[in-house]
Amino acid sequence: MCLPETLASAQSTISRRDLFKATAVAAVAAAAPSAIEAAPERALRYRSVIDLTHVLGTQTPLFPGYNQVQISVNRSYQQDGYYANQLNFNEHSGTHIDSPRHFDPDGVSVDQIPPSRLIGPLAVIDVRERAGRDPDTLVTPDDLRAWERRYGRIPNGAVVIMNSGWATRINNAQAFLNADSGGTLHFPGWSKAATDLLINERNVIGIGVDTLSLDFGASTDFAVHYSWLPSGRWGLENVANLADVPPHGATLMVGAPKHYGGSGGPVRLLALI
Amino acid sequence: MCLPETLASAQSTISRRDLFKATAVAAVAAAAPSAIEAAPERALRYRSVIDLTHVLGTQTPLFPGYNQVQISVNRSYQQDGYYANQLNFNEHSGTHIDSPRHFDPDGVSVDQIPPSRLIGPLAVIDVRERAGRDPDTLVTPDDLRAWERRYGRIPNGAVVIMNSGWATRINNAQAFLNADSGGTLHFPGWSKAATDLLINERNVIGIGVDTLSLDFGASTDFAVHYSWLPSGRWGLENVANLADVPPHGATLMVGAPKHYGGSGGPVRLLALI
Repeated sequence: MCLPETLASAQSTISRRDLFKATAVAAVAAAAPSAIEAAPERALRYRSVIDLTHVLGTQTPLFPGYNQVQISVNRSYQQDGYYANQLNFNEHSGTHIDSPRHFDPDGVSVDQIPPSRLIGPLAVIDVRERAGRDPDTLVTPDDLRAWERRYGRIPNGAVVIMNSGWATRINNAQAFLNADSGGTLHFPGWSKAATDLLINERNVIGIGVDTLSLDFGASTDFAVHYSWLPSGRWGLENVANLADVPPHGATLMVGAPKHYGGSGGPVRLLALI
Repeated sequence: MCLPETLASAQSTISRRDLFKATAVAAVAAAAPSAIEAAPERALRYRSVIDLTHVLGTQTPLFPGYNQVQISVNRSYQQDGYYANQLNFNEHSGTHIDSPRHFDPDGVSVDQIPPSRLIGPLAVIDVRERAGRDPDTLVTPDDLRAWERRYGRIPNGAVVIMNSGWATRINNAQAFLNADSGGTLHFPGWSKAATDLLINERNVIGIGVDTLSLDFGASTDFAVHYSWLPSGRWGLENVANLADVPPHGATLMVGAPKHYGGSGGPVRLLALI
């Protein structure tokens, strides 16, 4: 799909590039100091930065069994002249990454993920309409094929994220977990058939969800966690603001933590469009 | 400065851009499905990703007075079928960001920094030679002017980071803190004159150091912390691998944490070149 604004942006980029090319060629010929001033202000070209990260706080909804996040002041303006906090939380709190090590003793820990595998083209799979009717819905191979019919093959090195609309519930833990009277959770996730397709037939670096888990809430076997993570790829959970990025064309930067031996941890997700 | 390799890269980028332009124009004309397949694999163009983040661990050198980082297993393969850790650390541990709130009650907390101010052109000020002779050396206005004579004016929205060579000491806390017999620390940092120049005469989003503090180790007044952070800009401390990025031309993505009210916290720093 090529919207007029995309085309206009591409053309203006080219114009600036051509200008830069002309200047660069002149610079090599003349080795003139003025060439320095022609250096681009931004090495990278993008129009805006969209934050796909929820604020992490003491009320952040967590997968059952984890303790709430603790943020405690341990330096204060009054006593110390400055302010700082002690943080105490499980790695799998808020918008966070699951490293392969989380479900695979032989998988890489979060500090071992190669940095080049923390940035990639973003593909958003929109299942909001279906999730509104059925909280147990799954991202299927058909959803991936439907995306590809519209936007082209899932790019190499992509991050593929489900948008189920669940992020709008983030400030209501009860609605976010959506447990029934028996305690079974009900929220959307990935089907193993879809993640198997990505493992076997595409070349992506990670997947994500806007819910608490890569597996849907009612999962009893965590089939996606137990197959996707041991494939050497990572997952993102509790992703925010997916309605604010295009389904295709953004680039996602995963600001993963880098603590030793980590199974994952809170991330900062910045999408460039 | 325009190295031949830079020129070659610029030219090849232009060729691909021109190809994209031609394809995009054809797509608009024909609205043909084949245009979809011409979508770029990467929305963003870059050659490599350099990680400017130290691994955070229980031995990470800290500013005196903070407790060591704790990483404790609280889910194990044997007992739980998967692995996860509880993390307990001060915000100012390892490669981390100081938000304005750290030294200014009215400053923004780390979750309030606009995402567009977490990405910018990277300028590296190399003081390694001087720091090798004098651990109390400071980044001065003259250092900034020397950088600008060589690479052009510090770009708008830049992040300006001191490379003193200190990162090579990271696995030796004694050498990293470099305390004398009286307990005074000795490592390089920014002069207030230089950061005042950046506040008043340039338009940058943040500064950084490869040492423990924006202020040099022997500082008693923390003049940079008390002026720079209240100016609404942030700082990075304990930055790694600065020798692996060019002094000019890279783009830095700051994967800052986003916990509520934070004075800062560990970051993932990825430089794209």
